[in-house]
Amino acid sequence: MNPTYIRTFMAYGESGVYRTRGPARAAKYGALAVMVRSLASNLDDFPHTGVTIYNDSFPKIPAVAISTNDAEWLSGQLKNNSVVSGYIRNTSTMLPDEPSFNVVGEIRGTQFPNEIITVGGHIDSWDLAEGAQDDGAGAVQSIEVLRVLKALGLKPKHSIRAVMFMNEENGGRGAEKYLEIAKAKNEKHIFGLESDAGGFTPRGFGLDMSADKIAKVQSWKNLFHDYGVCDLEAGGSGSDVGPLKQIGAALAGLSPDSQRYFDLHHAATDTFEAVSKRELELGAVNMAALIYLVDKYGL
Amino acid sequence: MNPTYIRTFMAYGESGVYRTRGPARAAKYGALAVMVRSLASNLDDFPHTGVTIYNDSFPKIPAVAISTNDAEWLSGQLKNNSVVSGYIRNTSTMLPDEPSFNVVGEIRGTQFPNEIITVGGHIDSWDLAEGAQDDGAGAVQSIEVLRVLKALGLKPKHSIRAVMFMNEENGGRGAEKYLEIAKAKNEKHIFGLESDAGGFTPRGFGLDMSADKIAKVQSWKNLFHDYGVCDLEAGGSGSDVGPLKQIGAALAGLSPDSQRYFDLHHAATDTFEAVSKRELELGAVNMAALIYLVDKYGL
Repeated sequence: MNPTYIRTFMAYGESGVYRTRGPARAAKYGALAVMVRSLASNLDDFPHTGVTIYNDSFPKIPAVAISTNDAEWLSGQLKNNSVVSGYIRNTSTMLPDEPSFNVVGEIRGTQFPNEIITVGGHIDSWDLAEGAQDDGAGAVQSIEVLRVLKALGLKPKHSIRAVMFMNEENGGRGAEKYLEIAKAKNEKHIFGLESDAGGFTPRGFGLDMSADKIAKVQSWKNLFHDYGVCDLEAGGSGSDVGPLKQIGAALAGLSPDSQRYFDLHHAATDTFEAVSKRELELGAVNMAALIYLVDKYGL
Repeated sequence: MNPTYIRTFMAYGESGVYRTRGPARAAKYGALAVMVRSLASNLDDFPHTGVTIYNDSFPKIPAVAISTNDAEWLSGQLKNNSVVSGYIRNTSTMLPDEPSFNVVGEIRGTQFPNEIITVGGHIDSWDLAEGAQDDGAGAVQSIEVLRVLKALGLKPKHSIRAVMFMNEENGGRGAEKYLEIAKAKNEKHIFGLESDAGGFTPRGFGLDMSADKIAKVQSWKNLFHDYGVCDLEAGGSGSDVGPLKQIGAALAGLSPDSQRYFDLHHAATDTFEAVSKRELELGAVNMAALIYLVDKYGL
């Protein structure tokens, strides 16, 4: 991952293709298996894994991620020796699907109960990780938005839902189902906010909405500044609220500081202990403020 | 510490008086010893200690800090029982002074070698802590500023010194000595920059200088924005470069994100492992940029 990008997600976006598409591409050229360097910002001994996309034209060869320290070592070996042999033993297996569910909490709107604001994270995690930052943080922050409104005695005009989406990591079927039900019930979705970039100190919100709506959110900039949020710019929202764009929702995603995210992402290091309570809460406070402002002044 | 302040240093400033002045005040009223709640943002089992200021009119009674978890427990006991007795055993002792030194590295200026820009942190740490964030981070970042200039082949016009100040924690005598020598040599100090708030993601610089100089630094705001620095405002610099104000230096202090600082400050948790390399480097990059701009365009 290119360490010179300030925003680590840019490096992940650029290098991710080697993990997601590399195995299928290597199979095309006759490879028996693939080892990829973990997509991680730091040098450590933990493999970071993630989605790999095969196609049906070539064999689905085994693919493993090795830690960045191991990749450095292997790289050194490959430079110094013309032949390097390795042995891969992989005990992973894909189990059949089982039923699972999105988890939804809602405060009914006082004036427009049928107009819905969604704030969400995802409740599943990548298999070898505890998933505290990805995305326990976003799930907890979404619940916290409802708790904050309730604790302050605020009665939102629109219905506000905290949604813990299921299956973000492995197909996004929770997000698809949420959209499917919204369509079936003919729900009006005005805004969707996602937190799926970790519970680190908030720096901004990515805004996936029309230019006039972006300008409206930017007009609230001074309200956010003292709470650490400087960047209110066009950008991505998140893969779980993303599908709501099809039914006209304006979207946003919390942009926390990204320096430590890829030390932990999809690795055994993504534990509860690596979450800072103050950072997590500061993100939730800003999310609650955005939801409050959208509910009160519209978009 | 008041958890509602976004900037944790405000809470530390407000509550610090109980540790620094409490023991002397309690002695005045006949106390035999003092236990203070650790100045920490989080609940854990580690005592956080620090400077305590006695006066000569009353006995210098023993003072200990207890962890926030223990303070919570003790608080509960005091609420439920009319009499709570405790036993304090304190093996601390104040050892005699020993010689120690500031450590200074310098790049000589090409045009104004006798005009000096200082960038510094402190090399000592509070006794029960490894001191990785307070202030190993600032010391390393200051060295890094010189390394970056050198690596980029830049030849500064003014002399730039990285100074690792000694004895910040226990009297600031390294800072005093640095000023004393500067005065004795009749040095011209145009700017002093300090990093002593941890090696966390940089958020801004506190500017302790005249309004016209602040305006000049703020005119560079767009250059810093993409590197995560949003706040260029009047504020404090640091206790080590602070004395340089007496000889006319403009001063600034790096303001990193402060959410995690008081989880670690002056406690055994302030270890190398709690420093994020990317966060540390991002602070150093912004410091180097500020030093570069001040050297190039003046203040």
